[in-house]
Amino acid sequence: MPERLMPNRLTLHPDRALPAQPHVRGVARTIYEHTRDLPLVCMHGHVEASVFARDEAFTDPAVLLVTPDHYVTRMLVSQGAAPEDLGVTRADGAAVETDPRKIWRRFCAGWPLFRGTPSRYWLEHELVEVFGVDLVPSAETADALFDTLSERLAEPAYRPVKLLDRFRIELLSTTDPAGSALAEHTRLAEQGHGDRVVPTFRPDAVVALTSPTWEPAVEALAAAADMDTGDYDGFLAALRAQRQRFIDAGGLASDHGHTTPDTTPLPADRAAEIYRRAWTGGVAPEEARAFEAHMLFTFAQMAADDGLVMQIHPGVARNHHQASFDTYGPDQGFDIPVRTEYTRALQPMLERFGRDPGFRAVLFTVDETTFSRELGPLAGVYPSLRLGAPWWFLDSPDGMRRFREAVTETAGFYNTSGFVDDTRAFASIPARHDLARRIDAGYLARLVCEHRLTEVEAAETAVDLAYVLPKTSYARRP
Amino acid sequence: MPERLMPNRLTLHPDRALPAQPHVRGVARTIYEHTRDLPLVCMHGHVEASVFARDEAFTDPAVLLVTPDHYVTRMLVSQGAAPEDLGVTRADGAAVETDPRKIWRRFCAGWPLFRGTPSRYWLEHELVEVFGVDLVPSAETADALFDTLSERLAEPAYRPVKLLDRFRIELLSTTDPAGSALAEHTRLAEQGHGDRVVPTFRPDAVVALTSPTWEPAVEALAAAADMDTGDYDGFLAALRAQRQRFIDAGGLASDHGHTTPDTTPLPADRAAEIYRRAWTGGVAPEEARAFEAHMLFTFAQMAADDGLVMQIHPGVARNHHQASFDTYGPDQGFDIPVRTEYTRALQPMLERFGRDPGFRAVLFTVDETTFSRELGPLAGVYPSLRLGAPWWFLDSPDGMRRFREAVTETAGFYNTSGFVDDTRAFASIPARHDLARRIDAGYLARLVCEHRLTEVEAAETAVDLAYVLPKTSYARRP
Amino acid sequence: MPERLMPNRLTLHPDRALPAQPHVRGVARTIYEHTRDLPLVCMHGHVEASVFARDEAFTDPAVLLVTPDHYVTRMLVSQGAAPEDLGVTRADGAAVETDPRKIWRRFCAGWPLFRGTPSRYWLEHELVEVFGVDLVPSAETADALFDTLSERLAEPAYRPVKLLDRFRIELLSTTDPAGSALAEHTRLAEQGHGDRVVPTFRPDAVVALTSPTWEPAVEALAAAADMDTGDYDGFLAALRAQRQRFIDAGGLASDHGHTTPDTTPLPADRAAEIYRRAWTGGVAPEEARAFEAHMLFTFAQMAADDGLVMQIHPGVARNHHQASFDTYGPDQGFDIPVRTEYTRALQPMLERFGRDPGFRAVLFTVDETTFSRELGPLAGVYPSLRLGAPWWFLDSPDGMRRFREAVTETAGFYNTSGFVDDTRAFASIPARHDLARRIDAGYLARLVCEHRLTEVEAAETAVDLAYVLPKTSYARRP
Repeated sequence: MPERLMPNRLTLHPDRALPAQPHVRGVARTIYEHTRDLPLVCMHGHVEASVFARDEAFTDPAVLLVTPDHYVTRMLVSQGAAPEDLGVTRADGAAVETDPRKIWRRFCAGWPLFRGTPSRYWLEHELVEVFGVDLVPSAETADALFDTLSERLAEPAYRPVKLLDRFRIELLSTTDPAGSALAEHTRLAEQGHGDRVVPTFRPDAVVALTSPTWEPAVEALAAAADMDTGDYDGFLAALRAQRQRFIDAGGLASDHGHTTPDTTPLPADRAAEIYRRAWTGGVAPEEARAFEAHMLFTFAQMAADDGLVMQIHPGVARNHHQASFDTYGPDQGFDIPVRTEYTRALQPMLERFGRDPGFRAVLFTVDETTFSRELGPLAGVYPSLRLGAPWWFLDSPDGMRRFREAVTETAGFYNTSGFVDDTRAFASIPARHDLARRIDAGYLARLVCEHRLTEVEAAETAVDLAYVLPKTSYARRP
Repeated sequence: MPERLMPNRLTLHPDRALPAQPHVRGVARTIYEHTRDLPLVCMHGHVEASVFARDEAFTDPAVLLVTPDHYVTRMLVSQGAAPEDLGVTRADGAAVETDPRKIWRRFCAGWPLFRGTPSRYWLEHELVEVFGVDLVPSAETADALFDTLSERLAEPAYRPVKLLDRFRIELLSTTDPAGSALAEHTRLAEQGHGDRVVPTFRPDAVVALTSPTWEPAVEALAAAADMDTGDYDGFLAALRAQRQRFIDAGGLASDHGHTTPDTTPLPADRAAEIYRRAWTGGVAPEEARAFEAHMLFTFAQMAADDGLVMQIHPGVARNHHQASFDTYGPDQGFDIPVRTEYTRALQPMLERFGRDPGFRAVLFTVDETTFSRELGPLAGVYPSLRLGAPWWFLDSPDGMRRFREAVTETAGFYNTSGFVDDTRAFASIPARHDLARRIDAGYLARLVCEHRLTEVEAAETAVDLAYVLPKTSYARRP
Repeated sequence: MPERLMPNRLTLHPDRALPAQPHVRGVARTIYEHTRDLPLVCMHGHVEASVFARDEAFTDPAVLLVTPDHYVTRMLVSQGAAPEDLGVTRADGAAVETDPRKIWRRFCAGWPLFRGTPSRYWLEHELVEVFGVDLVPSAETADALFDTLSERLAEPAYRPVKLLDRFRIELLSTTDPAGSALAEHTRLAEQGHGDRVVPTFRPDAVVALTSPTWEPAVEALAAAADMDTGDYDGFLAALRAQRQRFIDAGGLASDHGHTTPDTTPLPADRAAEIYRRAWTGGVAPEEARAFEAHMLFTFAQMAADDGLVMQIHPGVARNHHQASFDTYGPDQGFDIPVRTEYTRALQPMLERFGRDPGFRAVLFTVDETTFSRELGPLAGVYPSLRLGAPWWFLDSPDGMRRFREAVTETAGFYNTSGFVDDTRAFASIPARHDLARRIDAGYLARLVCEHRLTEVEAAETAVDLAYVLPKTSYARRP
């Protein structure tokens, strides 16, 4: 790319991400004001509990803002950067960049690549609001930014728990494997944060029978539950026991990231037999898929019993580039969405639990073709369903706008979960919630200006989407 | 949900559903004025002919506006209402709510759920325009509204035929089973309404070989046609005879709601053999599907002969929740769209009749991914095709806008059918046409303001979409 | 259709196709000004090299603007015109309309059909900008227009090479079969245009083993390369030799229009065996498909070696109406898109070459559901990928807008190729580029007005999209 002209100073316009049309913007601004200072409810977080339990300072800007954020690294990789140069570790232990300043420089030099992306929006918000800096990232400003950010991070006010306060995070759900002993959550409870940072039960690894991580994951489950998972009944009992442990630790939800949302149950003896064969490696790929679908149904059954809210996040081909996975491991930006079908896939689960008042599922997608065709119509009739916020690649200004435009007319607002962030990058949480509140305000303002909603209703709905619905959607079922 | 603040009075803003931007709105208003008072042509109605033939007063607001409108009941069910509490009858005869006032109260209390939905828009229009009331529905206003609406309904001006006049309905097509004797239409003809309320030939039940309703449906066909449908030739002959009866009664169209739009024909002897086996229950599911596809092709053949316009409405998984179907029957909101493919599915039909000047098909979808990818390109070259209006869940402000944005650039305006409503709720017909006229005016106004169309052309096109094209698209083929 | 009112004069508004909202329009206009006069880079042209090598006058308006433009003829056919009446020749040699004035009259009478289409936009631009006429086409104006345009075409200024200058076309890539001897390009090089009009290597015909055109296409390849293509190794060697010939003639890209983008390789001996059987007609349809997929992988391998940029244009069911194909041949408007899958289909190719700095692929689609779901995420991480401009039916104002809205948030701007036209109609090239520049300016202006981008960045990005990225995306790989 040619040399880039840069504006002198980063600023956050008070009306950013609101609609451009002046009258609509005015209405949107008023609606947004009702939500701006509401607490944050973060029901699908990927920040580790240990970050808060240990509450240690973040060491440098690269480790906070670049290396662990696959939105950021994938964009730099797409334009030729090597993951190694961004500090991503290699499975073979070969050397990678360890100087955070050099990593930071690469990121700053690549700043123009983020034009038009939500990462750019979030990062600007973080730099200005969280760190109070106003330098536009570039090759020239990289060092100065690095120094200032490093100074800030050394201050006590930038410790994780202090930021939790400053971010007004009322509730943060972490993501924890089914076999977790929840030691960090116990520690957090002892520190008085047990109601604020709660675990989410994620059993994907223990139901992926043909994955190399299956056996250790099930063994961790057995150890955590102190039960024998050698046969299928023991496996189910251990899952139930661990779910109860999560509930006791304040957990409100389970999380399921299967490739498809298929929920076809198997006869119990067939499931038991496949499970048994998994221990000796004799499971065919189609059996493994059938078992995953069966377990999704089974988790719905458990949810109807114990009241954990089920989050379903399907439709991603994980680790699309095998060589990159082998070298750098998972979650490095090489996960690519695939077409996803919900109407038939969820039918067995909905047939059984769709009208069960004890059951709640929140549906996510990265296939927006399902918004108006399947998800809106499903959530618009089944009382057990809520539509989650637009997920991952769709957690973006236009992605969120299209979501509201596509589902509201069929499902209304009150069959959606309100905003749910999906964040690995802790410092981006306020930016994400703020952006969602602005986009929802913009959508609501359009309805007001088209005389499809009153301003009073719009303001009330905005508060519901920002705060009330995330709380009530994840409230444990009776 | 928390307590809701409500504005004091319902009003319909004259610019509702027009674009928010002032200049575009001004142009849209002018365009809309050209269409506002045009007569309504309603080619895909689901109001029973008997409503007009008997012309009895509607008994109460619940029976007119709540219980039979699955858009309304599904939303209330999605938030926990039992269908029984909304007056939906049960197959087992168990008691359901029979007090219309109580049903009405539940609906009014649920009013906030409809924010952002077309039901809200239509209902507001009905309350203000049709009934002249200005109370916002709520728990507090429910009784007053009920009383006022009940008074109105008792007035002669609110009888169905009077409303037909007041609504400026020039032509209303009902939906009638293939085996209908059209008794109500005969009665309507005797009353002088034969040119205004006409039947549509709907043969779905007689081609669904494995459905429990197949045999009685074919027997009704045989009885109506007074022909022996015991073998396939007799079946075809009876269908042809009944189509002619529909044509004689003013019918212009047939209607086909198969799950897929597959039109692959079978060899005649193969079709005959499957048909024969249907009488003894020996038809496999894939044979039943093949027969349906074959019959869609066959109906196209009949249409090319007799000139009925073929409406194809595929892509819905009917009765998604079996238990609800068993309890409440069909059309209770549990129909969910599925991904639909048209390009290959319609190829056999189009190969044979696509350029036949005697053949006309109007295509509908609830899968909007097909708008730009398949339906626009197909209608943009095959002279036999017209694209119907956005259907069902897509018959909404943003759904209609997206339809125009997605198909016009490839198919133009004149390969679409203009507005076709799909209404069970009689009183919502004017609201639906009015909304469509506003959305089309808004789309056309944008083209004008972007200098892609002149105002004169836009006004002319708006009239074509509102009135001329529905008439000409359904004119019987030569 | 009823009689049409027409405005008196054709004019091109300076702000056409820019956003309607005044403030956004003002910003868009400024951005557009930066790109308006940039040279055109046309990397996917379908104008024959002979047009420039011979540089003869176009004979009449119908042969320039109607008969060869399938966008135009398909719309007229969709409303009942016979292709014969538009001058389309028949395979059986039967008479077709040969009077260009009559063809032109039919086109002019059909002008209202093009309302809202990009053809209308392009044609207006051509009439006003290229030919300097201001009559709106209609039955009444047809003859006057025909006469004026014919006069213009007879002037030396309207010869193809003069237009190339006037259009500011810096680089035009033609599309040439793999077996082309590139005689016209040699002639152009002798005339000093060798750097300006370059060939594109299109091998579809030589890999479609079961097509009737396969054998002659492979024989042409053998003749051009002067090699024996009787076995698979010879076939590959001839392909490599011809690619080198194209490169020597200035070629930068290959072009691949398979039905699916499947890139699954076969074992070499399996591919060789299928190839061998093709000569005796013994290849099953699924083998032919597997061979095509294998060859797509193989072409990627060759591209990684020789640096030709690979253009992939899948997802179209060609010649949907067999009878029309038999009568009129290919490219007559009867090509219809089908649902297309990229994530899994491209995996084998990307697994092997996705991070290879010597490899570049530009992806196109007519299935816009893949924009946000597959193409954005793929291009947002694989350095070898660029997303091409919205293709064919999507090369339209709203199609281009939706493309930017759907992919930018995940892939940014710099993983797209910038504007690539796909033109058979030579005179429409400037109109198409101008329209793309306006739509991109409008999208960028919205980002500016929503405070998501600065004006300086937007202007710079606009220049990149209009000129820099098409050049750099197609620069030969190192």
